[in-house]
Amino acid sequence: MAVLPPNVSQATFDDALRRFREVVGEEWVFSSDEDVDLYRDSYSPSWGEPGERMPSGAVAPIEVEQVQRIVRIANEFRVPLYPISTGKNLTYGGSAPNMSGTLVLDLKRMNRVLEVDERRAFALVEPGVSYFDLYNYIQERGLKLWIDCPDPGWGSVVGNSLDRGLGYTTWFFRDHFGAHCGMEVVLPNGELMRTGMGAVPGSRSWQDYRYGFGPWVDGLFSQGNFGVVTKMGCWLLPEPDAYLSGIVSVPRRRDLIPLVDVVNYLENSSCIGQPRYRSPLGAARNEPPLRDLLARNPFPDDAELDRVAEEMGVPSWACQLQFYGGTEVVQAMWRQARQKLAEAIPGATFEDEKYYEMPMTGEQIANERKVAFGVPNLAIFSIGARSEQNPIPVDGHLDFTCVIPKTGEDFLNASRVFFDAMQGTEVLNTNGQFPFSPFLVPSTWHARNFIIIVGLPTYRTNTEANQRTRAWMSQLIEVASANGWSEYRASPTFQDQVMAAYSFNDHVLRNFLETLKDAADPNGIISPGRGGVWPGPYRSNRMTPV
Amino acid sequence: MAVLPPNVSQATFDDALRRFREVVGEEWVFSSDEDVDLYRDSYSPSWGEPGERMPSGAVAPIEVEQVQRIVRIANEFRVPLYPISTGKNLTYGGSAPNMSGTLVLDLKRMNRVLEVDERRAFALVEPGVSYFDLYNYIQERGLKLWIDCPDPGWGSVVGNSLDRGLGYTTWFFRDHFGAHCGMEVVLPNGELMRTGMGAVPGSRSWQDYRYGFGPWVDGLFSQGNFGVVTKMGCWLLPEPDAYLSGIVSVPRRRDLIPLVDVVNYLENSSCIGQPRYRSPLGAARNEPPLRDLLARNPFPDDAELDRVAEEMGVPSWACQLQFYGGTEVVQAMWRQARQKLAEAIPGATFEDEKYYEMPMTGEQIANERKVAFGVPNLAIFSIGARSEQNPIPVDGHLDFTCVIPKTGEDFLNASRVFFDAMQGTEVLNTNGQFPFSPFLVPSTWHARNFIIIVGLPTYRTNTEANQRTRAWMSQLIEVASANGWSEYRASPTFQDQVMAAYSFNDHVLRNFLETLKDAADPNGIISPGRGGVWPGPYRSNRMTPV
Repeated sequence: MAVLPPNVSQATFDDALRRFREVVGEEWVFSSDEDVDLYRDSYSPSWGEPGERMPSGAVAPIEVEQVQRIVRIANEFRVPLYPISTGKNLTYGGSAPNMSGTLVLDLKRMNRVLEVDERRAFALVEPGVSYFDLYNYIQERGLKLWIDCPDPGWGSVVGNSLDRGLGYTTWFFRDHFGAHCGMEVVLPNGELMRTGMGAVPGSRSWQDYRYGFGPWVDGLFSQGNFGVVTKMGCWLLPEPDAYLSGIVSVPRRRDLIPLVDVVNYLENSSCIGQPRYRSPLGAARNEPPLRDLLARNPFPDDAELDRVAEEMGVPSWACQLQFYGGTEVVQAMWRQARQKLAEAIPGATFEDEKYYEMPMTGEQIANERKVAFGVPNLAIFSIGARSEQNPIPVDGHLDFTCVIPKTGEDFLNASRVFFDAMQGTEVLNTNGQFPFSPFLVPSTWHARNFIIIVGLPTYRTNTEANQRTRAWMSQLIEVASANGWSEYRASPTFQDQVMAAYSFNDHVLRNFLETLKDAADPNGIISPGRGGVWPGPYRSNRMTPV
Repeated sequence: MAVLPPNVSQATFDDALRRFREVVGEEWVFSSDEDVDLYRDSYSPSWGEPGERMPSGAVAPIEVEQVQRIVRIANEFRVPLYPISTGKNLTYGGSAPNMSGTLVLDLKRMNRVLEVDERRAFALVEPGVSYFDLYNYIQERGLKLWIDCPDPGWGSVVGNSLDRGLGYTTWFFRDHFGAHCGMEVVLPNGELMRTGMGAVPGSRSWQDYRYGFGPWVDGLFSQGNFGVVTKMGCWLLPEPDAYLSGIVSVPRRRDLIPLVDVVNYLENSSCIGQPRYRSPLGAARNEPPLRDLLARNPFPDDAELDRVAEEMGVPSWACQLQFYGGTEVVQAMWRQARQKLAEAIPGATFEDEKYYEMPMTGEQIANERKVAFGVPNLAIFSIGARSEQNPIPVDGHLDFTCVIPKTGEDFLNASRVFFDAMQGTEVLNTNGQFPFSPFLVPSTWHARNFIIIVGLPTYRTNTEANQRTRAWMSQLIEVASANGWSEYRASPTFQDQVMAAYSFNDHVLRNFLETLKDAADPNGIISPGRGGVWPGPYRSNRMTPV
């Protein structure tokens, strides 16, 4: 199934592989169909179709100097490389490249935790280090530090940051790119660069101060293809003394508006960690009289929903608030939050939930949502697993993840707009349900914006269903763009379409990026097409919407 | 005094000015010596010498479209531009360019506050908006928002962020570049670009989510010369309910080590705002027996200093802790801080200081350090003013601002290293004193690193003294580099030398930046030499150390 890089003959490709083998050893260059298959995107929405992104092979170096040699050989033979780190990056393209024929540069063997400094609360890691690895390193040494980890924990600390992935603790640390500090990068010409204070020989501040001097380049390596990041620093959280959570519930639908305002205030003041919105009314949608109302009108107006909510005695919305800090501090913060919420929202009710002092016992952790405590895990994979309710799980999913402003009005409006726009389609999420309803809740990984997230199913054996999924995704992206919303992240299949939506002034941003890309990487060797940025030699490969 | 751009004849320059006048009107192009003199660096360490950076003139557009036309004309005539915003950027080069003959692009007339959103806590401003302007806009509307402002308040919100300037409240907001969200930029070819969600037509999230999609370019425009930033968003702080401050004092010199560790913990946990270290012992240096000890040995060892401190009953170090939050929260945080400090440092003592509930009265503000409350002011200029102690003030100063790791050991070591290295020189600071001693205190604007800051005097009428200042600065930069420390910011006179210290792997970072610069700005029109990045046409102008 492996395919050759564009404009590269089998003989040239074989020569290149031979040279790569000289660098990393026979066993770390993968070119058999059996091996290369493992680098396909397990969740590809084009599985087995011509549009599936297929690597030409893979090479797995164990140290920076090997990466440099590989990049130089790749330039010589015009074999483009797609660097990956560790984990699977499922729903965002897995390990498969944007352009078929690109060779995967698999960095999983570069998995050293190079430094963790407890007093200055940072780590310096290689790309193959997973969240599990970093967590275990810290635990084994008894350091009083927390990591902020995403779902799932097998992912790469470096890779997730570069993909601008997110986590679950306090707002600053949830932004994994934002919390990075300092990079080492193999440039497209094979040269080794360090950014920030890492450029100062002998500096001990590489992980203290990120900007260094002069223009700051790190952003180019996030969702980008300007080099191969071989080391990265990240800031860690000091272990708090205590954790407390509580739940606020509000009766009416439009109470979401002041609820979001007060929760924003608390979060922007660093009073709370990640707020988690819920729709108690939505959870009761199969009970009368709500069930009957929805049968008549799947998106009733606010007054109707409020009437039913009142009759059922069910709140319209709830939000879990999580506090991290000193033992008395978290109690005082929860009192402050209750007071502000009670003032702003008549009828708001409060429920004390959890309280832990650190360190938690193994049993406490085992029974908790681990990510809220910086404990990596794989629980996310239970979503969509086979169950009585879900007898035939789908094979994978694509996530539509759309940035909208963090206000109640914007969220209520977007819920309605997506519902209306998609109602005529048969769009189904991974649970086999129409994903839009009055009971959608905003996702809150980002510090200052909401996300509307919808998982669409992908299949290994059902091309027709995959075609439908692609059409739905494409349509969702269009609906978003038409309303000034857009994705912050996408699977390679949709990266060109998403980047095309960032079109201000006839795509000047994309043109600027491609001008820089051509200068930094004239042969277009690193990840052609990643983030919608195509180098000159492969620019004609840019996809038009699927 | 005005000088022509390199390789541009007077006739060509006059033609260019004529074209600029067509764009902005006669009165907004400045070319007389009298006018151009105002754009010189008032604090230049080379005042009146051939090395002084002299602009060729200035042009002041009032809107983005004029900026675009100016940039295009500049390309046509090869007249390089040096964009400035508002305020003076004193000690960092003022309004004078890196390369003599560059024309100042003065954006002070573009001074609109375009949007302030109280609920989402952001502002969108033009470059001519000062901290005073933004503060006044917020106050006039009674919005419950704080800005984080630097010294002094006349500076530009955009300009200070792009210079990676810093402020005085909580750690995240003090980093003015870090707290920006979204830019509009006129590129070196005159095209208009918006970054982040600003690239999505109709987006309301430009100031909510900074990264957008694909590689993130904003960093290139900080301390950089990749374009002219014409709009920028920044995140603001919600007004807290209360402010509390307290002081911890520790008896022994090496108590600084656990003091810094605990204060780091508190700050990295978002428990405190900016911590402010003091040296009570240093304040008593003119009293016996300390005076006598210092007369014998200007840098006594720790045991000697501790003995004298004990005898005098003066603490070695103190630190002001500032808490922002709910009325009960700040009290609980101060209790938590005291407990942690008391556990870590035997003999630590505590003093309650200030407590305010917001909003403060005018009288309260008037009597306070305004920057701690986000209130812009010009109090900084009282430093070095004429007084009984300081009868002959210097004309200006250059700041040496050196990043070192945020540990007590690193700081104590750096104090000693600078003392030893500079002791043989006659280096004097703006107060006419040798700037190094056992009583230096770390500056704490940055979230995760200390700064050692020394102000060196500059003069309008004393070339010989300026030459000494330049030699001292150059030597300080060399001492720093030799120890793995380096400046995060510098006056243009020293930017080449500072960038040269970021030399990892034979200056790959600088080479990479210049490769990108040449692609984005082939004529080298925007700020040649800024941040040590020289475009091809002017690269031979790079300075060797002064």
